[in-house]
Amino acid sequence: MPSFKGYFEIKNLDPFTLEKAYEALKYEHGTIGYYDLPSLSSTLCADVKMSLLNSTVFFDTIAVVGIGGSSLGIKAIDRLLQASTPHAKKIVYFENSDPISIAHESSRIEFAKTLFVVISKSGGTVETLSIFKYLIAKFEIDLQDSKQIVVISDEESVLSQFADHYRLKRFVIPSNVGGRFSVLSAVGVVPLVLAGFNVEGVLDGAKNFGEKFWARKEEHLLQKAAFCVANASKFPVNVLFSYSDTFEEFGKWVVQLWGESLGKRNARGERVGLTPISLIGSVDQHSFLQLIIEGPLNKTVTFMNIEHSRDELMIPSLSLPFLEKSDFVNGESFNTLINAQCQATMQSVLQSGVSVDEITWACIDESSVGEMIMYYELLTSAAGVLLEINTYDQPGVELGKQILQGYFK
Amino acid sequence: MPSFKGYFEIKNLDPFTLEKAYEALKYEHGTIGYYDLPSLSSTLCADVKMSLLNSTVFFDTIAVVGIGGSSLGIKAIDRLLQASTPHAKKIVYFENSDPISIAHESSRIEFAKTLFVVISKSGGTVETLSIFKYLIAKFEIDLQDSKQIVVISDEESVLSQFADHYRLKRFVIPSNVGGRFSVLSAVGVVPLVLAGFNVEGVLDGAKNFGEKFWARKEEHLLQKAAFCVANASKFPVNVLFSYSDTFEEFGKWVVQLWGESLGKRNARGERVGLTPISLIGSVDQHSFLQLIIEGPLNKTVTFMNIEHSRDELMIPSLSLPFLEKSDFVNGESFNTLINAQCQATMQSVLQSGVSVDEITWACIDESSVGEMIMYYELLTSAAGVLLEINTYDQPGVELGKQILQGYFK
Repeated sequence: MPSFKGYFEIKNLDPFTLEKAYEALKYEHGTIGYYDLPSLSSTLCADVKMSLLNSTVFFDTIAVVGIGGSSLGIKAIDRLLQASTPHAKKIVYFENSDPISIAHESSRIEFAKTLFVVISKSGGTVETLSIFKYLIAKFEIDLQDSKQIVVISDEESVLSQFADHYRLKRFVIPSNVGGRFSVLSAVGVVPLVLAGFNVEGVLDGAKNFGEKFWARKEEHLLQKAAFCVANASKFPVNVLFSYSDTFEEFGKWVVQLWGESLGKRNARGERVGLTPISLIGSVDQHSFLQLIIEGPLNKTVTFMNIEHSRDELMIPSLSLPFLEKSDFVNGESFNTLINAQCQATMQSVLQSGVSVDEITWACIDESSVGEMIMYYELLTSAAGVLLEINTYDQPGVELGKQILQGYFK
Repeated sequence: MPSFKGYFEIKNLDPFTLEKAYEALKYEHGTIGYYDLPSLSSTLCADVKMSLLNSTVFFDTIAVVGIGGSSLGIKAIDRLLQASTPHAKKIVYFENSDPISIAHESSRIEFAKTLFVVISKSGGTVETLSIFKYLIAKFEIDLQDSKQIVVISDEESVLSQFADHYRLKRFVIPSNVGGRFSVLSAVGVVPLVLAGFNVEGVLDGAKNFGEKFWARKEEHLLQKAAFCVANASKFPVNVLFSYSDTFEEFGKWVVQLWGESLGKRNARGERVGLTPISLIGSVDQHSFLQLIIEGPLNKTVTFMNIEHSRDELMIPSLSLPFLEKSDFVNGESFNTLINAQCQATMQSVLQSGVSVDEITWACIDESSVGEMIMYYELLTSAAGVLLEINTYDQPGVELGKQILQGYFK
């Protein structure tokens, strides 16, 4: 169970702000679908497992064809749980319309042993469909009744109609669940269960956190959202500084969630939003930290670390001539070192006057992953209601799509 | 040869600003070492090749042990040139004090065929030395005269003294070259030549760009630096939006260079700096673009793309039932699609009122890589003189290191 600690002071905060945010979220609860996914998706887990048992096709690789909300969450969970799920099947990702990546990834898969999971909420994503066509042509896939293709999309989308036309196995993303909030829907559940991850554990963690939040036992979340929104002009940048490489994809998922949900015009047409940045410690202590400490005070920083690592790798008690100055960590574990680096950096950032909070994962397990997913989704929704925007749409990206189509006419 | 295009207007710019920046950089030229690396390092290339010819040890993997300025630049070039250097040896990186990564990477290397390149400018980096000790213990390395270890450090550092003690092969980082500006010194040259990359080509590109800059033939660089600095309060965030996955590590290198160099207290003790963000297109169109277009106008965006890709991968002329709407790209190459996406997104960002510039690489080759490295280094130096800071130090990160040591006493 992760623990949360805020070092920032909530000043000048209207005492009714938290109440207002909570009530607005409760009001949303009927229409916004992601809140209920932890419960809804447990049946789905069982369904996918059943279809797996009944399947006649053996595969050892899952190729996810999807981009944005249709890949980031899957990658985040895949990466976080890989170390504790050694027998999970390999998941490869076809996301970008980058020819170098597509050529590279498609050369690495063995077609006969690969299950393709094609994911697009709208069903019309140009990258996803173009890559899908490329894979069909490259591997000469016979679409009719193909047991190697699974489709995940909105119930009524053209991609779902396509799947039904060829009698492909398909799963539905509830229409009231937005792409970047969809990781606990079929989008994440289907490929991750197929790969052998314990997705029920993730759903349980998310469910627990949600229940505690609705029971007003996670008020720090509302406080943090209120702090970020109240200080949006002063601190327009929110940094997530995570101390483990395994948070790399989780950080990217948070960036999409926070950036795309909150960067909006509000009801008065004003531009609002908060700029997320994901960093990895200790690596980015050697890259970005100087700017945080001595640069403009325009950032908040969330430090995230893992108390107990799965790998108790030790720094040997080895004293090398001329290098004795580094002996102070001899005989310690790398986990102790990286956590001490997180603490030391946090202290130095605090002393430089930056608003900081801290999230400590006891360990990385399914339940914690689920809790942190629900935490960030609820945090985003809370910030959204306080910014008085529609957290769940993305009207700004439409113009580019129209211009793109014009280029090919 | 990359081409540069600025869509921003330089308003209210003191006409002497560019002159001032140029003169300040010229003045620095005598003391700041990175300017001369393209020339200085060509001899080094020859030396490394010679020592390779004389080596009795066969290796197929290079393990770089280094962090920050001792790894980011190597990774950037390695990734960019991989596709055009198919016979390059594999480089693995030991950077972070993350036990999961260290365990994973060290399990993947075959000791007998691995050359370890240990890089630390100061010679005292705690991550690097701790990992080095771990590798010594794990592989039971006999340090005396070891042919499997190469050390790169400052001439007088403790790491250099350690290397001499055991008669290890070592190379020197010139003392007037800072870590994040060191990629064209031994730091990048040695491992990349050892891996089989055409580093001379990179150096030539960097040299060419430098010469043109000093001859006042790349004035756009000074203009861009002046624009970023003049608008630092209005646009505190500078986004680099690169359209190819192969720019991922290059983007991280730029983030370190820009963030750590410019985030400083100036002579009057004021906090200055610009916050860099690296994005990858088209992926981040589905993540961050909404915030750029509708969120606060606090960002500049540089779009970067590759005109001609090495992979002429085609989108098949395949019309699938119900999915005909995506047929508008049928028969086009993925390279055409991703470049059109870059252009369309740039147009939509411009229309939303954001200051934009554009860097187009004709193709990814050694010369372009060198030019772009020198471009970003000079751009950073130019912004630094205009911010009236010391671009080359990083005093802000020292406190954290002291606090860290205190934890282990």
